[in-house]
Amino acid sequence: MNVILDLCIVPLGVGVSVSLYIAACQRVITQAGLTPRLHAYGTTIEGDWDKVLAVVKRCHEVVHEMGAPRISTTIKLGTRTDREQTAEDKVRSVEAKLTDV
Amino acid sequence: MNVILDLCIVPLGVGVSVSLYIAACQRVITQAGLTPRLHAYGTTIEGDWDKVLAVVKRCHEVVHEMGAPRISTTIKLGTRTDREQTAEDKVRSVEAKLTDV
Amino acid sequence: MNVILDLCIVPLGVGVSVSLYIAACQRVITQAGLTPRLHAYGTTIEGDWDKVLAVVKRCHEVVHEMGAPRISTTIKLGTRTDREQTAEDKVRSVEAKLTDV
Amino acid sequence: MNVILDLCIVPLGVGVSVSLYIAACQRVITQAGLTPRLHAYGTTIEGDWDKVLAVVKRCHEVVHEMGAPRISTTIKLGTRTDREQTAEDKVRSVEAKLTDV
Repeated sequence: MNVILDLCIVPLGVGVSVSLYIAACQRVITQAGLTPRLHAYGTTIEGDWDKVLAVVKRCHEVVHEMGAPRISTTIKLGTRTDREQTAEDKVRSVEAKLTDV
Repeated sequence: MNVILDLCIVPLGVGVSVSLYIAACQRVITQAGLTPRLHAYGTTIEGDWDKVLAVVKRCHEVVHEMGAPRISTTIKLGTRTDREQTAEDKVRSVEAKLTDV
Repeated sequence: MNVILDLCIVPLGVGVSVSLYIAACQRVITQAGLTPRLHAYGTTIEGDWDKVLAVVKRCHEVVHEMGAPRISTTIKLGTRTDREQTAEDKVRSVEAKLTDV
Repeated sequence: MNVILDLCIVPLGVGVSVSLYIAACQRVITQAGLTPRLHAYGTTIEGDWDKVLAVVKRCHEVVHEMGAPRISTTIKLGTRTDREQTAEDKVRSVEAKLTDV
């Protein structure tokens, strides 16, 4: 089962700046052989369910190891059985409707 | 690693009523030996990370098997290393502050 | 337009304990004449869109006034035009499917 | 009060393809004088709280007018009082940490 997942990790107890922790998660995702797509409110990851969710777990472990005592994470994720669709397909599908007259 | 997770599964392509699918997920959670706490915008589950996340995957599989071609899910989840905390602890902690004068 | 909204406010830069801020938001909601339904991962509020969203804004203002320099909030919200539905209706609708044989 | 908001609108009861509705929301945002940043799991909008939240309401109205009887929306939003920060600043801040040796 393929999944497109949007990950937003918020470490608590480490002050207001969280970019160091987000950067560490980008590395975790890349090291797992997946391609993170960073945006202002999260990172999109796609691939096999087990592989993607294992990366989410690893991100939590790494952020705790970096010193964050508490993590509050929001995830949006989608699966579909009717057809294959990539994260890029989703964006293109909307953009195509925007250029149509 | 223990996790408190809030699960909100939205099946697409099956009309506007989704309660049948949510009820099926409640059964999936219970059958896994976990205790779902249903609220108006999701279900709270807590326990070992791998066990809880396996249940989320199983919910997606079951909702697809029931005929939903697409699922859009929102998850909030928290882990902490500073102390143990249950979902009930979280609610009580807020309620205690409300009764304080 | 009526809305059912699930509010999860996470103040950053104030340490790991956030219940004091959540409790303050409960009071903001109550003072606005709305009924908060607290659960482990948020608070459900329902009512007229403008009234409910004004309360969300007031919560941000109050939590900042209490000293939180940064707030990260997750909201789930639903509107429907096909029929009226309360937060309690949503829960009951799932529970009814669970007791059906 | 400035806000950075991530909007993910999911219309229900209109089948599995939702890009037409998302495209309509992009136009609503642009017509309000704001700049949508579309990604695979939502759209980032930033600006004055009242202006941004008015756009979210207008999106719901438009998607209902297009025929969707029910909408399930997920929003992430952030405010801060310690300093000004744009959506682009957030992305750059993470990227800077990734290029540091």
